[in-house]
Amino acid sequence: MSQQAVNGVSHRGKVLTLDSMNPNVKRVEYAVRGPIVQRAVQIEKELKEGVKKPFTEVIKANIGDAHAMGQKPITFLRQVLALCSYPELLEDNMFPEDAKKRARRILESCGGHSIGAYSASQGIECIRQDVARYIERRDGGIPSSPDNIYLSTGASDAIVTMLKLLVCGEGRSRTGVMISIPQYPLYSAALADLGAVQISYYLDEDKCWSLDVAELRRALNAARQHCNPRVLCIINPGNPTGQVQSRQCIEDVIRFAKEEHLFLMADEVYQDNVYAEGCKFHSFKKVLFEMGPEYSSTVEMASFHSTSKCYMGECGFRGGYMEVINMDPEVKAQLTKLVSVRLCPPVPGQALLDLVVNPPQPDEPSYTTFMKERTAVLAALAEKARLTEETFNTVPGITCNPVQGAMYTFPRITLPQKAIDKAKEEGQVPDMYYCMRLLEEEGICLVPGSGFGQREGTFHFRMTILPPTEKLKVVLQKIREFHLRFTQEFS
Amino acid sequence: MSQQAVNGVSHRGKVLTLDSMNPNVKRVEYAVRGPIVQRAVQIEKELKEGVKKPFTEVIKANIGDAHAMGQKPITFLRQVLALCSYPELLEDNMFPEDAKKRARRILESCGGHSIGAYSASQGIECIRQDVARYIERRDGGIPSSPDNIYLSTGASDAIVTMLKLLVCGEGRSRTGVMISIPQYPLYSAALADLGAVQISYYLDEDKCWSLDVAELRRALNAARQHCNPRVLCIINPGNPTGQVQSRQCIEDVIRFAKEEHLFLMADEVYQDNVYAEGCKFHSFKKVLFEMGPEYSSTVEMASFHSTSKCYMGECGFRGGYMEVINMDPEVKAQLTKLVSVRLCPPVPGQALLDLVVNPPQPDEPSYTTFMKERTAVLAALAEKARLTEETFNTVPGITCNPVQGAMYTFPRITLPQKAIDKAKEEGQVPDMYYCMRLLEEEGICLVPGSGFGQREGTFHFRMTILPPTEKLKVVLQKIREFHLRFTQEFS
Repeated sequence: MSQQAVNGVSHRGKVLTLDSMNPNVKRVEYAVRGPIVQRAVQIEKELKEGVKKPFTEVIKANIGDAHAMGQKPITFLRQVLALCSYPELLEDNMFPEDAKKRARRILESCGGHSIGAYSASQGIECIRQDVARYIERRDGGIPSSPDNIYLSTGASDAIVTMLKLLVCGEGRSRTGVMISIPQYPLYSAALADLGAVQISYYLDEDKCWSLDVAELRRALNAARQHCNPRVLCIINPGNPTGQVQSRQCIEDVIRFAKEEHLFLMADEVYQDNVYAEGCKFHSFKKVLFEMGPEYSSTVEMASFHSTSKCYMGECGFRGGYMEVINMDPEVKAQLTKLVSVRLCPPVPGQALLDLVVNPPQPDEPSYTTFMKERTAVLAALAEKARLTEETFNTVPGITCNPVQGAMYTFPRITLPQKAIDKAKEEGQVPDMYYCMRLLEEEGICLVPGSGFGQREGTFHFRMTILPPTEKLKVVLQKIREFHLRFTQEFS
Repeated sequence: MSQQAVNGVSHRGKVLTLDSMNPNVKRVEYAVRGPIVQRAVQIEKELKEGVKKPFTEVIKANIGDAHAMGQKPITFLRQVLALCSYPELLEDNMFPEDAKKRARRILESCGGHSIGAYSASQGIECIRQDVARYIERRDGGIPSSPDNIYLSTGASDAIVTMLKLLVCGEGRSRTGVMISIPQYPLYSAALADLGAVQISYYLDEDKCWSLDVAELRRALNAARQHCNPRVLCIINPGNPTGQVQSRQCIEDVIRFAKEEHLFLMADEVYQDNVYAEGCKFHSFKKVLFEMGPEYSSTVEMASFHSTSKCYMGECGFRGGYMEVINMDPEVKAQLTKLVSVRLCPPVPGQALLDLVVNPPQPDEPSYTTFMKERTAVLAALAEKARLTEETFNTVPGITCNPVQGAMYTFPRITLPQKAIDKAKEEGQVPDMYYCMRLLEEEGICLVPGSGFGQREGTFHFRMTILPPTEKLKVVLQKIREFHLRFTQEFS
């Protein structure tokens, strides 16, 4: 007799159970906030409660969360946000005039002059204008229209919305979406949720995680047997792999997309995070337009940007935008309708985005401080990118490509066969076992490579390079010691 | 020869067209921001450009957007938000100590003490604790656990997420979701997007838009022929209909949900917006628990709340939460995983929610001003609710139920047959034709009843009661005159 019947409660079981829930949701996986992070949070609680550990704090290097790692907010951005939140401060003398000017302009474009009003679903018009002008400056004058800009709740929101528009068909006609392996798991999660077919193309680890069109073609041809490939997703600079694509590579990808009739999704949220000498960010849009009208008037594309990364790292505000190019006007109307159901992206995030695309100018009072803060963040990241690569490459059993851009390293780890066997015994994939051990023994939280995808038989982890330099040195040293100890243990 | 071929550009047509896009998205409709609002925005632009109209401004009474209608933000909320945005202000003397205290507590619970850090995906823990305590106070001490609270990007986000979990099956096994008619079109839009089956139950206009269990049963039995009904959605206080459910009615609904094995979704975002004498807000959770363990330990439920409505009207911040009750722990783990893909709700919206559930107390310096502002907003709304009902009911051909709660009126309009014929000629549904004419002639933007659903052959519109009293009087007078003129024209 069941417990419920014992209590005299008639019971048919729950309406919503693991068996009766949306099966697509069950297939969703998001390693960046997966079981290892849950365990990290638990350990933090245990430390607070006084449980003795071999370390005194957990360092969460699992996610690109700059402020959580101690990076200070950029003064100008926060001054304007405070002014927008409490416009009475506009009367105060403590804020510079350019901050007040920006705040007034944003407030004037809000309903009732309040960031508490809903905005247009596509985003506040004057901010979309500023975004378009930013893109034009970035791309050497190639025109951008505010009508093609959609503000969003972080880049993730826009990426999922765009994928949702593109997915249709059943069985062999089901939409296939090409994503890199390793990938940022938002993509695989969104595809699982939408019931779309994931088409994996592999980045070449031996060539600094570069993208090879022959590999794109191999993956595409294989996929054509069982689905309808329609979309090609690119992350540049790369997450989790940190590579920065060459102009030539981007041109090849665009040519491939056109030949194969694919919609291009260019995830360019790390466009200001380029560190390696000789590397430069080239936007897909700029390259597309430089390839001439045969391309620029036909290839359909969406490009994504965010306020969460770059020098500002304002993840909590969930600001972002996408620009759509060559999108069918009828589809654009459908997109506008779709985003209107959620009413609007958070207005504080929209305001923040406005400041990012329209920062202080040389003749404005906040310019010097702003530039000093911005440069300091980016210079420190460049230093940490170099430090990370160098240190890892001194460890036998770890090989690490240069962190050319973004905020992560994705080093390859060689695991002894005995460790692989041990992991299987414990019912874990080997790199999860490795990362869990590292967490328990050193208090460092990384994400196993299996959460991003990797070639069969290879193992990696993703680590952000965001901890402050002195702390990063400690982290790298601890991983080094752990790796040697771990390898020793299973040799 | 196509234009493309003329230009020498080989072209296979677009990848993404109306024919090749996600068909579910095409079925999505969201009248609150539909064609009439797009026309309203266009007219505003025309006015700015100097085009002569029979009016000088467009009054957008289509959406519950308090600040856009001139409502001032609550001082305390905005002071704390400014402090959280720019913590240097904590050193300043211009802010009261209780505002500083709240800001410090929120900042201390943020990664790196910055609202620019990601929060936990479920929301900041101390804010979830405050929400749970708020619910306990509201419900006379019935326990609430922070583990059952999920912060969200407005209530819409949580509602869509919850529906997504619940939808599965194909053909006759496809999940059916019961929604009221008239309804808030987020529901029909989300169901179309998810490919779920909408089961419409009708509210009784003759009985003040009340909900009758016999009608629920009729709708359910009819739906069982073609789908698998699993969910019952209730909006209380009602949107667009403004009714407030009696305790008895809620009890009947809960009993029905239990008998018929349905998951209950209680949209309670207007819980502080109750105006009519003798009406009181009863939360579904409180009633559920008062019905005894046979109910409180079995009926699965989610309740939704938001920072966008009530007295604060902070729509732009996109703050909200849901509380889940009796949810299967395995499903809860899936829910937590699903929300983690979008990383976290906007942190400024989370902070705002914290202030709403944890407002100034009588012994704190901001209490008097806060209460004065809060009471003024709610008293004005009550007055406008009364004014709206009274005025409409003096117009021949308009009948209007009392606005017991929420922020809308949904009066019934009698349209002459010739007007209905004229609308058909113009290819519009009759109430859209009516509302478009009103917009063009008087500059007032309402939403046609067809956007919310209504009994065949009846016509309505939804109007917010949010404009300031003096402006609302003008709006009501203009609608009165328009209605008489319109009726005259087609008689």
